[in-house]
Amino acid sequence: EGLSSTAETAAKPSGSTSGFNSLLVTTEDGITTIKMNRPAKKNAITNEMYNEIIAALEQAAKDDSVITVFTGAGDFYCSGNDLNNFQLDGTKSVEEKAKDGAELLRKYVKAYIDFPKPLVAVVNGPAVGISVTVLGLFDLVYANDKATFHTPFSQLGQSPEGCSSYIFPKVMGPAKASEVLLFNKKLTAVQACELGLVTEVFPDSSFQTEVWRRLKAYAKLPPNSLKLSKQLIRSEEKARLHAVNDAEVNLLRERWTSDECANAIMSFFMSKAKL
Amino acid sequence: EGLSSTAETAAKPSGSTSGFNSLLVTTEDGITTIKMNRPAKKNAITNEMYNEIIAALEQAAKDDSVITVFTGAGDFYCSGNDLNNFQLDGTKSVEEKAKDGAELLRKYVKAYIDFPKPLVAVVNGPAVGISVTVLGLFDLVYANDKATFHTPFSQLGQSPEGCSSYIFPKVMGPAKASEVLLFNKKLTAVQACELGLVTEVFPDSSFQTEVWRRLKAYAKLPPNSLKLSKQLIRSEEKARLHAVNDAEVNLLRERWTSDECANAIMSFFMSKAKL
Amino acid sequence: EGLSSTAETAAKPSGSTSGFNSLLVTTEDGITTIKMNRPAKKNAITNEMYNEIIAALEQAAKDDSVITVFTGAGDFYCSGNDLNNFQLDGTKSVEEKAKDGAELLRKYVKAYIDFPKPLVAVVNGPAVGISVTVLGLFDLVYANDKATFHTPFSQLGQSPEGCSSYIFPKVMGPAKASEVLLFNKKLTAVQACELGLVTEVFPDSSFQTEVWRRLKAYAKLPPNSLKLSKQLIRSEEKARLHAVNDAEVNLLRERWTSDECANAIMSFFMSKAKL
Repeated sequence: EGLSSTAETAAKPSGSTSGFNSLLVTTEDGITTIKMNRPAKKNAITNEMYNEIIAALEQAAKDDSVITVFTGAGDFYCSGNDLNNFQLDGTKSVEEKAKDGAELLRKYVKAYIDFPKPLVAVVNGPAVGISVTVLGLFDLVYANDKATFHTPFSQLGQSPEGCSSYIFPKVMGPAKASEVLLFNKKLTAVQACELGLVTEVFPDSSFQTEVWRRLKAYAKLPPNSLKLSKQLIRSEEKARLHAVNDAEVNLLRERWTSDECANAIMSFFMSKAKL
Repeated sequence: EGLSSTAETAAKPSGSTSGFNSLLVTTEDGITTIKMNRPAKKNAITNEMYNEIIAALEQAAKDDSVITVFTGAGDFYCSGNDLNNFQLDGTKSVEEKAKDGAELLRKYVKAYIDFPKPLVAVVNGPAVGISVTVLGLFDLVYANDKATFHTPFSQLGQSPEGCSSYIFPKVMGPAKASEVLLFNKKLTAVQACELGLVTEVFPDSSFQTEVWRRLKAYAKLPPNSLKLSKQLIRSEEKARLHAVNDAEVNLLRERWTSDECANAIMSFFMSKAKL
Repeated sequence: EGLSSTAETAAKPSGSTSGFNSLLVTTEDGITTIKMNRPAKKNAITNEMYNEIIAALEQAAKDDSVITVFTGAGDFYCSGNDLNNFQLDGTKSVEEKAKDGAELLRKYVKAYIDFPKPLVAVVNGPAVGISVTVLGLFDLVYANDKATFHTPFSQLGQSPEGCSSYIFPKVMGPAKASEVLLFNKKLTAVQACELGLVTEVFPDSSFQTEVWRRLKAYAKLPPNSLKLSKQLIRSEEKARLHAVNDAEVNLLRERWTSDECANAIMSFFMSKAKL
């Protein structure tokens, strides 16, 4: 951890940080970095954070950086959707919360589908739920060897999002993807790399140093060539991905109002409380 | 075999067996198991067996089980299409038999495409022909280390079915899929797993115990979440898969009336007779 | 090299060679072999060679061979587009050269998409640029262990072609394909095989012997079964591949007239001149 922290400090960008509550956003050396910054909550994504990430991606799309990087503060990459987003506060019905949550999710995933520049995930630790599923919409995914990838949808009575219901079977084949998407299998970084979800795995001790060295070199390549090539690759799937996002969000909205899902989430909170 | 047989007996469901001639169909612990039961013929699929499997899948789709499992009795998983299906009995012309065979095949593969719940193959031994190609339509494929996967289409003057002409190149890439689909390469269980056709390979000695332990745990997950997630994943490919099935069946119908195919099958029977 | 040369000689076809300047085209044992034959230039593809390959593929499609093989003379497979194709000679503007180059490229890739028989690459050494990208349109790709696969598009201010922008992400997943298509990663033969671009890697010493032994056996399989099965597999992607080819060519035409690309190619020539 010592070496890795040093490396992270060394790589810390000196550019200006925009006024986000849940994110650190900086630009340096042609790289805009969006760092999820709720380490005490394992970077769980609140509704505010969804909106801030959407705004940060919109900003990064327009700034003069060549590459955009996503990472997490602390030992976790991201623990996924903050389940407190589901808690009722008396102002809205279950159906209204499900509708609002679905629209936010649709907009969130859309921001990844439409992102116009190379997008890189620097997965610094365990990743859960939607932070895993949207990885299929990234161009590069670097992981340290402490990272894990877990999408416990059915355990929580839910269903896949982030276009994973289309991209994961396409990349891994259905026989491997179903373990992940239907049966809650947690992947190690090496397994995720073998299945094509991760570009490369690095020892934790050299992770930050090696990854930022590479990214800085990549950011010096001809920017239009990179941007237009990425858009070309994406263009061939874009309409499909938006349709998949819609179908996934519509199913989740239904799931969120089901007794099955409510019971599964309640069981989850109760088992946590027992620990 | 001793250990594996014991495990298989231990896992044998106690639910009711429907009146099929070529299958054992049972439901227990939320799992409906369809076992091909012509072990003396290596579970080769006769026309009767195609129809019984279609009926068993229709039943399983409607019963209250959570997961449906496909497996074979004896040491073979399935030796594929029973070549006696091609034998002329004087009542029908080659063209009529080809037409009937094509319609039956179309309906058979359609039953897999449309199956609404998680579908699991427990591949207990060698698999040949259509029992291999439809594996791309399963959600999980568990194999023991004695299983092999062989699709000798061109050797028999025929062409791929079971949506393999679309799914295999998609999962393996064309460079690997062509060896299997065009050039009769037989895969070991480990090779099939590396290529993404198989979820996981188990030693024969622990195969039945380990696989059924897992499946029983999976069958306790929220059933609607599983079913709707599987349907979501499938929905994105369903129209395409039906079109692929049609194209494959139409080509096979033509193949079955060709001299090239007749000669290849005759050579096959003659080489078997010589052994 | 001794053994490999002997093997190559042993396998040398005795059929007639058509009158091509840049190719050796022969037919023997049911196999038409198209050998790129500018070994002193590492088989770089000139405009003449593009046209000759198109013509050779058209011929091979119609001849009575069962399989068509692509390979290179000498130690290189192919160093890709001859950058001299970009040199202005005063007769045409940059825009006119870009337009002509784009049309030639479109026609070249179209010849691979539409090729009606099994197409095999025998990759005898390093492969660069378009000789790599079109490999996704081959049915089998055999490589010796000295082969490498390099597509330095962004380094040259350009963008992917040969349908690689669609096929590579489909086969490798986006996280692996982006390293190759966007960030100039050179793959070893073993890496390309693990990623599904290559069917199998052979030691250089046994490469020619083993590969030609196999191909001769494959060429004895029922030819219509092979041809129609290959066409079936391709038919499911054909319209998509033509659309991808168009989109790729249109972007490259734009790239070829950009300052970014001109500067990148000039830097490349200058760095070569310095060596």
